Amino acid sequence: MLTINADRLWRTLMRSAEIGPGVAGGLKRLTLTPEDGEVRDQLKAWAAEDGFAVTVDGAGNMFVRMEGASDGPPVLIGSHLDTQVTGGRFDGILGVLGGLEVLRTLKDLGHVPKRPIEVVNWTNEEGARFSPPMMASAVFCGVETLDWLYDRVDDDGVRLLDALEAIGYRGEAPVGKPVDAYFELHIEQAPELYDEGIDIGVVTAGYAVRGLLIRFTGETAHTGPTPMDRRKNAIIGASYGAVATNEVGHAYAPLGKATASRLVAWPNKPGILSSFAELTVDVRHPETEAADRMRDEILARIAEGAEKAKVKWEVVSTWTYGEERFDPALVDLYRQAAKGLGLSQKDMMSQAGHDAYYMSRVAPTAILFSPCIDGITHNEAEDITPAHATNATNVLLNAVVARADRD
Amino acid sequence: MLTINADRLWRTLMRSAEIGPGVAGGLKRLTLTPEDGEVRDQLKAWAAEDGFAVTVDGAGNMFVRMEGASDGPPVLIGSHLDTQVTGGRFDGILGVLGGLEVLRTLKDLGHVPKRPIEVVNWTNEEGARFSPPMMASAVFCGVETLDWLYDRVDDDGVRLLDALEAIGYRGEAPVGKPVDAYFELHIEQAPELYDEGIDIGVVTAGYAVRGLLIRFTGETAHTGPTPMDRRKNAIIGASYGAVATNEVGHAYAPLGKATASRLVAWPNKPGILSSFAELTVDVRHPETEAADRMRDEILARIAEGAEKAKVKWEVVSTWTYGEERFDPALVDLYRQAAKGLGLSQKDMMSQAGHDAYYMSRVAPTAILFSPCIDGITHNEAEDITPAHATNATNVLLNAVVARADRD
Ligand SMILES: [Zn+2]
Ligand SMILES: [Zn+2]
Repeated sequence: MLTINADRLWRTLMRSAEIGPGVAGGLKRLTLTPEDGEVRDQLKAWAAEDGFAVTVDGAGNMFVRMEGASDGPPVLIGSHLDTQVTGGRFDGILGVLGGLEVLRTLKDLGHVPKRPIEVVNWTNEEGARFSPPMMASAVFCGVETLDWLYDRVDDDGVRLLDALEAIGYRGEAPVGKPVDAYFELHIEQAPELYDEGIDIGVVTAGYAVRGLLIRFTGETAHTGPTPMDRRKNAIIGASYGAVATNEVGHAYAPLGKATASRLVAWPNKPGILSSFAELTVDVRHPETEAADRMRDEILARIAEGAEKAKVKWEVVSTWTYGEERFDPALVDLYRQAAKGLGLSQKDMMSQAGHDAYYMSRVAPTAILFSPCIDGITHNEAEDITPAHATNATNVLLNAVVARADRD
Repeated sequence: MLTINADRLWRTLMRSAEIGPGVAGGLKRLTLTPEDGEVRDQLKAWAAEDGFAVTVDGAGNMFVRMEGASDGPPVLIGSHLDTQVTGGRFDGILGVLGGLEVLRTLKDLGHVPKRPIEVVNWTNEEGARFSPPMMASAVFCGVETLDWLYDRVDDDGVRLLDALEAIGYRGEAPVGKPVDAYFELHIEQAPELYDEGIDIGVVTAGYAVRGLLIRFTGETAHTGPTPMDRRKNAIIGASYGAVATNEVGHAYAPLGKATASRLVAWPNKPGILSSFAELTVDVRHPETEAADRMRDEILARIAEGAEKAKVKWEVVSTWTYGEERFDPALVDLYRQAAKGLGLSQKDMMSQAGHDAYYMSRVAPTAILFSPCIDGITHNEAEDITPAHATNATNVLLNAVVARADRD
């Protein structure tokens, strides 16, 4: 079996961890901010050191390329370098820099793969600044249009296209191209592998995810004299919705999960009733039908709450992913690689969203998990050991080479 | 009876209505913004035209002075020129510019009052940018300190002192001084006078108001894999609090009112649980004891909701006003003036907050209401007729002169 340069991988991860530091040891590297620009420049510089070409597409997705003996569609490895506001040093980052380590190792070995191999850094996987998450892979796969992506606006009113141009990462390449296969290495983001002391998670499928952005419309008025029965406070409509979301999540636990992750209102000031509010709802369940039922129950309770608050409401946008089943041949490559390396492994489902969901619609796709300590993630305390990173990247390396070199 | 120059008053109000226009015919003139600076400059220019001296104190409160025959504590008339985000053209503004019209009328008449008369524009009555409301009159009356006021921070992290200095209105005068009496003219902000076709409301007392700023502390984590029973989402704690506030308000309606006016969270982004949230709660009732009971019920339900959401909570600040009873002699001056002018009148309570509440702790104080159309306020559609403005300002004029000229 092939093995990576473990020290180099860890050094590379630690260099990334210096760019966009948070306040508690993690990262705050929101998509398309100057910090995101800096880590992108660093990735370009690393690629240049080894003579790997870098292409940027119109959505800002970056592709680092190792040429193969022949010129067909590349085997693609990828994940994301952007983080949450209180992000960790490995979420997404391990997948991109692990992919880079695969290319570097092959170059060290003088191993020219039969097919080209590319490593992609997807723009805005997190959806923390521009909603929804995974939007650039959605465009790559034809699920959404590039114009739609450009028109997303962050909470400060900045348009995505302007943010992309501001950091110089609106590329020339068209968004979307043929791909031989897509491999994604990611930290598990749950404690199962870590608690059980297992080295590798082979992801066979994802939880069904249903996202909703709900808008509530009321009317401004004075908080004092306005009679209770004439009030149309959008904050109350949204709060009923947040409470309902959480209670439906508890009703479907432990398999089901439901989150009110974002609640914004306007004017949202003392002394005045708010005329506007938005609520972001996120529902997850391993069974598609149960996820749909949870979503429908939440919508029914939102309708009740809006009536109590006397506000209008509408679903402004929805997103759906996760029920994809991954490619059995690729899944088997991970299993074989882990076995050949003498690592313990188990099959599992992913509960979090990944660009791999969209990629599975256009190419054979599979995800590989590394343990993460105590399952802590989207939190600056997120952590993995060098051994976690090394083991998982070794599996990635051997699985990718098997795919790229097949007849 | 004396009468004002009605056209001049209306022109002055309409000039103010050009400064900091909103999007729907009203005003967006938040305290200590450039627009607030502009209307302050305009007030200074108007005072200079008539030779009235202007003093600014350390809290940015502006005093326009007409000298009297003797030099004792001034009779003070006042209100505020700042507005809500979706503010009207008359809320507060009628009181300041009506006060200016009183001075102008006396000058026209060559009437030198026995005592000096001053018109005050209080800083940040609304509390829409810096919480709590009426903070500058609170400092003037010794309820809060000037350092406390300087340290208030808006939602963009701007400190009040910096905002005050940025528009050049940190004055030299000490905050607070002896005052002979305080008169405040304000629009009713409820539909009672307008619906009943009554010209003048004589305010004898206020609703008891209890304000609470509650902070919720949870923990960031991923919205996907994190088990429901390990979540500490601050948004859920705050939403339970908002719902509880609204339901307690309905339980005490129509006399009682309770509002969740502001709910902010952090990071408040898709994909992550929020570790922080704040909720602003506002409770009002004509009976002090009932207002306290409403507040206590809301706090008990907030404790329950926080426990369900597994978040910590604390009361960060509180404010209390409104149970003051106004000075019988001043109240009677309004009644006599309205009677002398042949205007219809009724006694009433104020449901909204006014700087007069704090002033009543240091000087004889009373409030006068003008009708406002349909009671609409804190909304750009707020409106009054020229006759509403004229009638109320005529009452103010005669009441103030009677006080200033007494033996
Ligand atoms: Zn990720
Ligand atoms: Zn006002």
